[in-house]
Amino acid sequence: MRLWKQKTLSMKTPPKLNDILTAHERIKSYIHRTPVMTCATLDRMTGASLFFKCENFQKGGAFKARGAFNAVFSLSNEEASSGVITHSSGNHAGALAIAAQVRKIPAYIVMPSTAPAVKKAAVEGYGGKITFCEPTLTARIETTQLLIAETNALLIHPYDDYRIIAGAATAALELLEDIPGLDYIFAPVGGGGLVSGTALIAHYMNPHIKIVGCEPQNANDAYRSFKEDRLVPIENPKTIADGLRTMLSDKTFGIIKKYVDDIITVTEEEIITALRTVWERVKIIIEPSSAVAVAPILYGKFSAPGKRIGIILSGGNVDLKNLPF
Amino acid sequence: MRLWKQKTLSMKTPPKLNDILTAHERIKSYIHRTPVMTCATLDRMTGASLFFKCENFQKGGAFKARGAFNAVFSLSNEEASSGVITHSSGNHAGALAIAAQVRKIPAYIVMPSTAPAVKKAAVEGYGGKITFCEPTLTARIETTQLLIAETNALLIHPYDDYRIIAGAATAALELLEDIPGLDYIFAPVGGGGLVSGTALIAHYMNPHIKIVGCEPQNANDAYRSFKEDRLVPIENPKTIADGLRTMLSDKTFGIIKKYVDDIITVTEEEIITALRTVWERVKIIIEPSSAVAVAPILYGKFSAPGKRIGIILSGGNVDLKNLPF
Repeated sequence: MRLWKQKTLSMKTPPKLNDILTAHERIKSYIHRTPVMTCATLDRMTGASLFFKCENFQKGGAFKARGAFNAVFSLSNEEASSGVITHSSGNHAGALAIAAQVRKIPAYIVMPSTAPAVKKAAVEGYGGKITFCEPTLTARIETTQLLIAETNALLIHPYDDYRIIAGAATAALELLEDIPGLDYIFAPVGGGGLVSGTALIAHYMNPHIKIVGCEPQNANDAYRSFKEDRLVPIENPKTIADGLRTMLSDKTFGIIKKYVDDIITVTEEEIITALRTVWERVKIIIEPSSAVAVAPILYGKFSAPGKRIGIILSGGNVDLKNLPF
Repeated sequence: MRLWKQKTLSMKTPPKLNDILTAHERIKSYIHRTPVMTCATLDRMTGASLFFKCENFQKGGAFKARGAFNAVFSLSNEEASSGVITHSSGNHAGALAIAAQVRKIPAYIVMPSTAPAVKKAAVEGYGGKITFCEPTLTARIETTQLLIAETNALLIHPYDDYRIIAGAATAALELLEDIPGLDYIFAPVGGGGLVSGTALIAHYMNPHIKIVGCEPQNANDAYRSFKEDRLVPIENPKTIADGLRTMLSDKTFGIIKKYVDDIITVTEEEIITALRTVWERVKIIIEPSSAVAVAPILYGKFSAPGKRIGIILSGGNVDLKNLPF
């Protein structure tokens, strides 16, 4: 993982309030201010008041655009001149391609050859330059290093980067501006960028709000790390929540252990049922990773009645040809 | 069809502007003011500016709540005292049950025994009293007549009723309030309640706006009626757009031939592809009937570039276990 340490610029400490407010100013003309939706049926089912922050409607279909725009637009002209690079087969790849396209710099995306055609098409649609590699960590890192040597592009890690975390925090910032008096915010945990940004901004704006990270039982590195107070790695977890197969990093874990109140895990069955329930009742397309943050409230893993709960729906990119129901 | 003529009350002529404004005042505290969504990707694909009026987010998951609330809440106490009745296996049944529940009167729903379990559960969830009958028109009418004789409930037709049409018109009223300068409004055509209400309010508020009804080729009674200038019946049409299997009535056809500018038909394949495109790109769940109003714009049956087009997405009730992709 040493690779990711190279060329990390600028923000050396976790984002402060002002860093997040600055990030929001920087990106707000490029991203959507996504709506907050409610659903009377789900409120009735849970006894709570649920407020869904709809990042599934965000540019590129996920909250990742926030971090990508913040990172790309905080680069100096010199830093940006050779473009940016990342390795990802997921939403960060598409988001980085979008942000780079707007800044008119190249985005190099290293993607495993096994990535779904739909993700490849999305990145290419945004003008990203894809290099395929074998689907192993070693191949990814080597391919990325070769490409950096060749292009001098700047590496933008999907979450182990405070600029990315500050960008991700702006989703909860908008939620807090729009919905007063929240008791809780639930967010899914993959690499931890979203939940750590969420926890930071809630801490700055209203420290009474409790932050709950939600994770698949099958990819419970954050849960274990949180409980054992050490970064517990996980390898190739099998979960339908494809956005949450990554593991925490030093930076995200550092924030999570300080500012997140609890981490709850859910089963694959709970994820799938929550996914269907949101589709059927809220009438919006969310991806399985987002359903992970809804499932604990629906299935009694959290005492919801009477609470005002914000839920960050992280994204809506799904392959409709490969649904679990 | 004589049955539907019984006990038709109050509104004897097509809704005037004031009738629609009054309907909106009457229902607005009971229904959702649904959002108007846009999608940069679909705009890019079509060259148009598309504005989606999201009645899939309406109470009960369809625009039908508007007509049902208007009809139920325009009854005198005496008229309402024995409850309301309709025969429908679709969104009107659920909407009538919701409105009756709020007014605290019984809603009797005659439903074919073949209706999907999900629709039955929805009506029951809203407190509707279901009576099943054989899936034939004769059985429906006989069962309904027997039930009326027994209960003295008031029949509320799903669309051949000016109160229902005035209620349906309020969706376009809100769209016109929210989005200035539309060139066109597209709406699906089943029984014609939605498109005739839409055409009336557009005519009153801005007669330059052109109204296009959209219909499955396999259920093209409105298209044929419009072209031949006579009410052409259709029997048991086969289309995935389950909300559009009904046929025009005297009242809706009377309005359509006067105020609708064109009717365009689309194939089943176009409906399914449009459905998938909206789910994937706009990230919202719409039902096949709604996709019918999007398909002509996506598949070159209408010259869209440069136009500002409102599209009424009529509903979002789908059976996720029975998807066409």
